Amino acid sequence: MSPLPAGSTIGILGGGQLGRMLASAAAQLGFDVNIFCPGDSPPAARVAAGHWDADYDDHTALEDFAANCDVITYEFENIPVASVAHLVSCSATVRPGAKSLEVSQDRLAEKQFLNAIGIETGRFEPVESVGQLETALQALGGEGLLKTRRDGYDGKGQVRVRSGDDLDAAYKEIGGVPAILEALVPFEREISVVIARGADGETTAFDPSHNEHENGILKRSTAPCGLSQDVIARARRLAETLAHETGHVGVLALELFVLKDGTLRANEMAPRVHNSGHWTPEACATGQFEQHIRAVAGWPLGPVTRHFDAEMENLLGEEALAPPTAYPEGTVLTLYGKRDAKPGRKMGHTVRRTGAA
Amino acid sequence: MSPLPAGSTIGILGGGQLGRMLASAAAQLGFDVNIFCPGDSPPAARVAAGHWDADYDDHTALEDFAANCDVITYEFENIPVASVAHLVSCSATVRPGAKSLEVSQDRLAEKQFLNAIGIETGRFEPVESVGQLETALQALGGEGLLKTRRDGYDGKGQVRVRSGDDLDAAYKEIGGVPAILEALVPFEREISVVIARGADGETTAFDPSHNEHENGILKRSTAPCGLSQDVIARARRLAETLAHETGHVGVLALELFVLKDGTLRANEMAPRVHNSGHWTPEACATGQFEQHIRAVAGWPLGPVTRHFDAEMENLLGEEALAPPTAYPEGTVLTLYGKRDAKPGRKMGHTVRRTGAA
Repeated sequence: MSPLPAGSTIGILGGGQLGRMLASAAAQLGFDVNIFCPGDSPPAARVAAGHWDADYDDHTALEDFAANCDVITYEFENIPVASVAHLVSCSATVRPGAKSLEVSQDRLAEKQFLNAIGIETGRFEPVESVGQLETALQALGGEGLLKTRRDGYDGKGQVRVRSGDDLDAAYKEIGGVPAILEALVPFEREISVVIARGADGETTAFDPSHNEHENGILKRSTAPCGLSQDVIARARRLAETLAHETGHVGVLALELFVLKDGTLRANEMAPRVHNSGHWTPEACATGQFEQHIRAVAGWPLGPVTRHFDAEMENLLGEEALAPPTAYPEGTVLTLYGKRDAKPGRKMGHTVRRTGAA
Repeated sequence: MSPLPAGSTIGILGGGQLGRMLASAAAQLGFDVNIFCPGDSPPAARVAAGHWDADYDDHTALEDFAANCDVITYEFENIPVASVAHLVSCSATVRPGAKSLEVSQDRLAEKQFLNAIGIETGRFEPVESVGQLETALQALGGEGLLKTRRDGYDGKGQVRVRSGDDLDAAYKEIGGVPAILEALVPFEREISVVIARGADGETTAFDPSHNEHENGILKRSTAPCGLSQDVIARARRLAETLAHETGHVGVLALELFVLKDGTLRANEMAPRVHNSGHWTPEACATGQFEQHIRAVAGWPLGPVTRHFDAEMENLLGEEALAPPTAYPEGTVLTLYGKRDAKPGRKMGHTVRRTGAA
């Protein structure tokens, strides 16, 4: 595909904050944006030219959407793979392709895939019954994180278990669905690499950020991440491997645990723009949202030079209801236009310049 | 008015590129945006939650618009003053107020107002007939720019005249409407000050930019402007005077001629975000579009610290049809989503970092 001319229409599956920020970045480059997302007025639809309010498995609506878009992308990884396949069967161009989407929807498949392409993870065992959970616990040293294979996010669908716990209750707590038991990784720091791969196979990775979580939800990402150039170079190479091996076109994120000796273990991947890259639009020559749009439009990727040190903080729940006078001068504020500030819900974020680059 | 909470709706009269960039800035702060603009799919409407496609003097549509907005602003100065008055009569909050709008719609009233508040302009004479044009030419030394009092922009509605020219033809060329003859000002450089005044009366002015025109249309704005701190300080003070004397709430621009000895003469004002401030979102801690939204929402203004030296270039007509590979690496590209690349039409702009601040 030759570069999509400005004035073309980019379709986005999903209507949350990532779609909203992608839509704004696309508009800046002169594109029109259509949003496909069930619901009356999702955040992204309010900054887009068109909105298809339909379920992701509504094939008639998907066909109509495809007929009104020049290229289609997605903003979250729980879009049914069958929907993407249906779009492709209607001759739609969908970027990234199905591979990274498919892999990242299933924690077990994801970890197996990562290992197969040489990216080490923590140890893990599949769990489909209480009996299997018991065996898995023994195999992993009597302790682990039990997670649903599908649909978990922000600490949902997971529980910590030890030998001697009520395993029936634990398995019930995550819904008794196919699961994975992950060994606890004794990490010193969590980082992520947000990388873009263009349609021509070129990649550009932003500086890795140091990520801090609270209650299973990302709270803060800081760049630079405070690690040695050697660790950073290895982290980037892992992300490059992942981008190439999936044939991904667009932005993806690889979360990594850093052990005391600098060893890296993949935690998880996301086949999309990522919360830990929200500092990039302010701090870098090209932000992650523009970069993703450039990639899916077949444009050359932009430079990812970091102009300054930055700290991104998520605004969760009612934190986002603070009056505009509450933020220190120089804080760049982004709010997502969500109507309901439920506890723990990602409502916005701030970016602060913390020093010269 | 206390600060407008995020989630409120900001109405914008006008749907061009300035409205589009204002709408995106408002969305980043968590606001919804409605656009009032005649036409099927103006650039700003494609990045907004709602669009009222009606004429500016359609009072019923204005009333409905007012009922669906928490505060209303405008993106161009040729909105009828009566429309703004009607909105105010429906209890709508319109920012900026009517004063700066009214003054800036009429070149004669504008220059008289500027002079009255101590801001010097070039000499000028009113012209309402060919006879008056002849007298005016004599008074101004036999040469001048004949401009319509209303509705001119980007070099339209103006013609250069000298004694001895066919004055009948010249006056006919601008439509035979009420006009003004402006003396030619022997300037060395044109600059502009883009300034914001908050609801609390606080002002923040961006660094003045050096502006270069081609065929009466702005081509390039550069910051810093290359003038002495003394000239810059005087330019800022003039813009502050204008903002305070009009009681303006929001961003306004004052274009100034700089003479050889550093004397400043106002050329014109614009009661809105301005083309010569298009470098500010990339180069400054707060850009002019966010600043305007902050002001009209009653939020504290952001800092206008300039992070680097910048050059903004307009993309006129078919210049905007260049392939995405045509721009040097590191160029930040903004395209306006206009359908038709007519010659001289402002289609987009680029911002380049030219050095450390």
